[in-house]
Amino acid sequence: MCTAATYQTKDFYFGRTLDYEFSYGDEIVVTPRKFPLDFCHMGKCDAHYGMIGMAHVADGYPLYYDAVNEKGVGMAGLNFVGNAVYQKVEEGRENVAQYELIPWVLGQCANLQEVRKLLAKMNLVGTPFGDFPAAQLHWIIADASGAITLECTKDGLQVYDNPAGVLTNNPPFPMQMFQLNNYAGLSPKQPEHRFSGQIPFTSYSRGMGAMGLPGDLSSESRFARVAFVKCNSVSGDSEKESVSQFFHILGSVDQQRGCCEVAEGKYEITIYTSCCNASKGIYYYTTYDNHQISAVDMHRTDLDSKTLSCYKPVTEEQIFCQN
Amino acid sequence: MCTAATYQTKDFYFGRTLDYEFSYGDEIVVTPRKFPLDFCHMGKCDAHYGMIGMAHVADGYPLYYDAVNEKGVGMAGLNFVGNAVYQKVEEGRENVAQYELIPWVLGQCANLQEVRKLLAKMNLVGTPFGDFPAAQLHWIIADASGAITLECTKDGLQVYDNPAGVLTNNPPFPMQMFQLNNYAGLSPKQPEHRFSGQIPFTSYSRGMGAMGLPGDLSSESRFARVAFVKCNSVSGDSEKESVSQFFHILGSVDQQRGCCEVAEGKYEITIYTSCCNASKGIYYYTTYDNHQISAVDMHRTDLDSKTLSCYKPVTEEQIFCQN
Amino acid sequence: MCTAATYQTKDFYFGRTLDYEFSYGDEIVVTPRKFPLDFCHMGKCDAHYGMIGMAHVADGYPLYYDAVNEKGVGMAGLNFVGNAVYQKVEEGRENVAQYELIPWVLGQCANLQEVRKLLAKMNLVGTPFGDFPAAQLHWIIADASGAITLECTKDGLQVYDNPAGVLTNNPPFPMQMFQLNNYAGLSPKQPEHRFSGQIPFTSYSRGMGAMGLPGDLSSESRFARVAFVKCNSVSGDSEKESVSQFFHILGSVDQQRGCCEVAEGKYEITIYTSCCNASKGIYYYTTYDNHQISAVDMHRTDLDSKTLSCYKPVTEEQIFCQN
Amino acid sequence: MCTAATYQTKDFYFGRTLDYEFSYGDEIVVTPRKFPLDFCHMGKCDAHYGMIGMAHVADGYPLYYDAVNEKGVGMAGLNFVGNAVYQKVEEGRENVAQYELIPWVLGQCANLQEVRKLLAKMNLVGTPFGDFPAAQLHWIIADASGAITLECTKDGLQVYDNPAGVLTNNPPFPMQMFQLNNYAGLSPKQPEHRFSGQIPFTSYSRGMGAMGLPGDLSSESRFARVAFVKCNSVSGDSEKESVSQFFHILGSVDQQRGCCEVAEGKYEITIYTSCCNASKGIYYYTTYDNHQISAVDMHRTDLDSKTLSCYKPVTEEQIFCQN
Repeated sequence: MCTAATYQTKDFYFGRTLDYEFSYGDEIVVTPRKFPLDFCHMGKCDAHYGMIGMAHVADGYPLYYDAVNEKGVGMAGLNFVGNAVYQKVEEGRENVAQYELIPWVLGQCANLQEVRKLLAKMNLVGTPFGDFPAAQLHWIIADASGAITLECTKDGLQVYDNPAGVLTNNPPFPMQMFQLNNYAGLSPKQPEHRFSGQIPFTSYSRGMGAMGLPGDLSSESRFARVAFVKCNSVSGDSEKESVSQFFHILGSVDQQRGCCEVAEGKYEITIYTSCCNASKGIYYYTTYDNHQISAVDMHRTDLDSKTLSCYKPVTEEQIFCQN
Repeated sequence: MCTAATYQTKDFYFGRTLDYEFSYGDEIVVTPRKFPLDFCHMGKCDAHYGMIGMAHVADGYPLYYDAVNEKGVGMAGLNFVGNAVYQKVEEGRENVAQYELIPWVLGQCANLQEVRKLLAKMNLVGTPFGDFPAAQLHWIIADASGAITLECTKDGLQVYDNPAGVLTNNPPFPMQMFQLNNYAGLSPKQPEHRFSGQIPFTSYSRGMGAMGLPGDLSSESRFARVAFVKCNSVSGDSEKESVSQFFHILGSVDQQRGCCEVAEGKYEITIYTSCCNASKGIYYYTTYDNHQISAVDMHRTDLDSKTLSCYKPVTEEQIFCQN
Repeated sequence: MCTAATYQTKDFYFGRTLDYEFSYGDEIVVTPRKFPLDFCHMGKCDAHYGMIGMAHVADGYPLYYDAVNEKGVGMAGLNFVGNAVYQKVEEGRENVAQYELIPWVLGQCANLQEVRKLLAKMNLVGTPFGDFPAAQLHWIIADASGAITLECTKDGLQVYDNPAGVLTNNPPFPMQMFQLNNYAGLSPKQPEHRFSGQIPFTSYSRGMGAMGLPGDLSSESRFARVAFVKCNSVSGDSEKESVSQFFHILGSVDQQRGCCEVAEGKYEITIYTSCCNASKGIYYYTTYDNHQISAVDMHRTDLDSKTLSCYKPVTEEQIFCQN
Repeated sequence: MCTAATYQTKDFYFGRTLDYEFSYGDEIVVTPRKFPLDFCHMGKCDAHYGMIGMAHVADGYPLYYDAVNEKGVGMAGLNFVGNAVYQKVEEGRENVAQYELIPWVLGQCANLQEVRKLLAKMNLVGTPFGDFPAAQLHWIIADASGAITLECTKDGLQVYDNPAGVLTNNPPFPMQMFQLNNYAGLSPKQPEHRFSGQIPFTSYSRGMGAMGLPGDLSSESRFARVAFVKCNSVSGDSEKESVSQFFHILGSVDQQRGCCEVAEGKYEITIYTSCCNASKGIYYYTTYDNHQISAVDMHRTDLDSKTLSCYKPVTEEQIFCQN
């Protein structure tokens, strides 16, 4: 499945893992301000904020998995299979198809407040993109001021505050947050010995304070784990230190090949991990087989252009040979 | 603390994390065949197998944390605080100081069988190196044929088969292996629904087969987690695929800064992670703040030399800028 | 807090624990058919089914915690603090106060089907009983055909199928049922060894199949534990064997004095545990300090009377001295 | 398997559960002071302390599972299959067969200090009793001053202090005690919220302080659970309150029929639970199908007699009918 996280140092960082058993063929794509966004029900828009993210480009259209716009708003869609129920097209409403939701939001909103307003009047519909069935997703949207989660279920469109600043998959977000209560006592510090005064306890290892944190790859367990790592992360606030720490945060929910068998001999892995400096528009990423961080800088492309700038991800391990 | 693991594809790989709150100043060090090894109680040896590994060089002597020799035998020392009890120097025995154990073993043994023989007659003593107190350690030693664990406790020197091919820290190895029994039912596949036929269960997420695997940073939890990931790992057997997978295995026990507070504001982190192709003598590593894999090839140094070849680890994030 | 369970052998059994730090003064109370039930908003009713259960009698009115009627329908109210939100009185609806819900339902319904119909038109209101504030509760209602859970939250009145046939407290029932998915692989049988073929695992103890089942006293953990024990219970179907097994089921969530401190030196304990043979109208119970099962038989009272029959629970340990 | 525990109020209490899939036919047996104890290798003894406990009487000899002597020393043998290794008969040593260990110790020792001395010179041998193979056991021995555990393994006879005052089965006792370290942070109080200051946690239920305590029936899990309940138990110190609390302690590790399947359709259950007032020599017990506590008082038998006094346990549910 997938995991998303936010991180704040001097700048604001936003990223995610994409976990699956195969890749659709993804590219780092910069959508410049004048690229014509032809919305399904909302008409054409050729003046909008520029954005950068990972996308599958189909028929010239960037189907974004995650992206950040030039104003520092980030957004990622994560699998929400079995729970996502899209709305019906309604006349007089702002009908947005799920596949165009990321450009719809990032194209118009300069901050989370504007996002909330936009979502309040939106009708999220399941219109498919060509032959692709509508992906069942939910979304995390964040800027330096905070994060929200957007879910469209049988109960309608829900917008939730997301104080943890992380997202995985099922179950719905309120249940994920609720389950965190079961881990409220965990800490990076050693546990106090409260079991009994009669027994001489030993902290036989460092790092015992988070005992009870789950280590498997299910979406509830990844949620708790990444929330713990993210909320307790400590790093310098330089660009390199921040980016490095971010990849350590998402590394805590890395899916190793072999550990999640989805069909006989088929394994879900972390295909890519991204970390975008939302403040500066730089998209950093690693792929399963390339541990080196690569980067694409939105501002080194012509943001006033009308055409997409696409960069194939580096997927082969780049090893630095010291001798 | 630390974690070590082995991995077999076409070649044999051996590596470890070193987790601590500061670095002593480590280098990738090749000890060539004729480098004079002046053993504390066993005299000088200037004809031995060459080896490569991470070491702190003090007074010209390589204090190895982990290394692999030219015959494909790997060895790593991991913290074993509170349990390591070294023996007394005994006349007529092969007295080896704990700090020189890695060169002692790797200098002489071409395979695990020879290691076992050497250990059988060895007396492991706590003679300190200069002002350094004797580090309390235990060791994993492995080649393509298997792995063993060496522990020197109040019960004497113990050599254990290590079918899991992993090691962390406390408690002693037999207890770590015993605790794995509690996870015997975990699997990369989804769990069968055995709780009750009355209740309609849902596998609401992929990756639920390892529920119960611990996610914290204590040594018992890291042991179970890395054993699970290592034993279930799947990868191609090319050099790059194998090395990549190895770093994913040890990534499962990465210590993120902030998650293990050892004193007010002091955090233990994974200072470096290594993966040595033991068959080919290439030492790969990453550091906490450099996700790119770097490599030093033993066979690109003069193995018949008498002087150490030392390489400072690359510790600054090497980001590839795509535009 | 509290736990309720159902159990089916030849007869149908229904019972609960009541966990709290003090008792309001409870009695086993038989409400006969002609006892005038004066409903707050629905008028007087003096012809209804007889019922037996544990109640606090205030001003001559039986405030039932749990009861079973002569038709074999059982019902229990359990704490649901922070989630129960009652409705407003609405003209033209069947307005029922939460404190009179048990007699309202059990007085009229001969089976679960009738209960569902009754609930469909009911408006559950928070009218207090005298000076008592409205207790925040949710309910389990069951007969031999199955069980349902009734919750009145900010989203309105909810009726859920309850295939597990158990109930505890927070969070809301759908979340409790969802969390059971995390335990779907647990079993009374020893686990198959699926972790790795490389490691020789040992089932060093009997009863390892349910490893991962939580053992603490929180409401989520009690839900999972009692569901596991109930769903896997095996017993003969005689009265004594069934009743004995039922007390073993609820014994799995017994709250021992000292293990749940709710205020300095104040402990929540299992004040009483009940098991009603719903088919025969016999109310069995134990109290924290009396392990012997006591019984009150509804049919040994005059069910056509107009006055309550009340029995003080035996709360002192009844020890049988064999010599 | 089995669980034993101690409990101290005004008097000292000692008891255990016996968990198995069938009973050998057990009785409460008082061995009076002059009953001739014919030790296998140590000759006859017909002047010893009297004792009471549960035993299978074979050929007139009481094979005790657990007992307490008139001096207040209690002792119980619990399954230790795969780990118990008895010693060889050695001339000049005090050779004691495992089946006669309880009378050997309780017949001679007035307190734990004397027990330690006796064990120091003892050689525990596996001489079988008739056709019965030597049961693989380990023992807890306790008086008001404390408790010890006795294990005879391949490493010889071991006597351990037992500060927890509980015992179950595998693995060996030091490992059981070590594993308790993993639960050192658990408490009867609600957990402090240490996970993160960013997230508003809710203690949605009482009793969340012991989250992480295991709830299954394996011997490691029962050890942790009963230790937690015992160490945190609170009760009045009258006889009835103490005895009641003791049965609640052992109730926390009750094995319910159906939850531990040892062969197709065969289930291990808690056949009996005992609680002996060691100070007064009263043996209290319940059986799986009789929740009422029964009692046999050693001092109501003729302790100066030469013949055993045997009492068949009450195994049928004794229900008190209130009407």
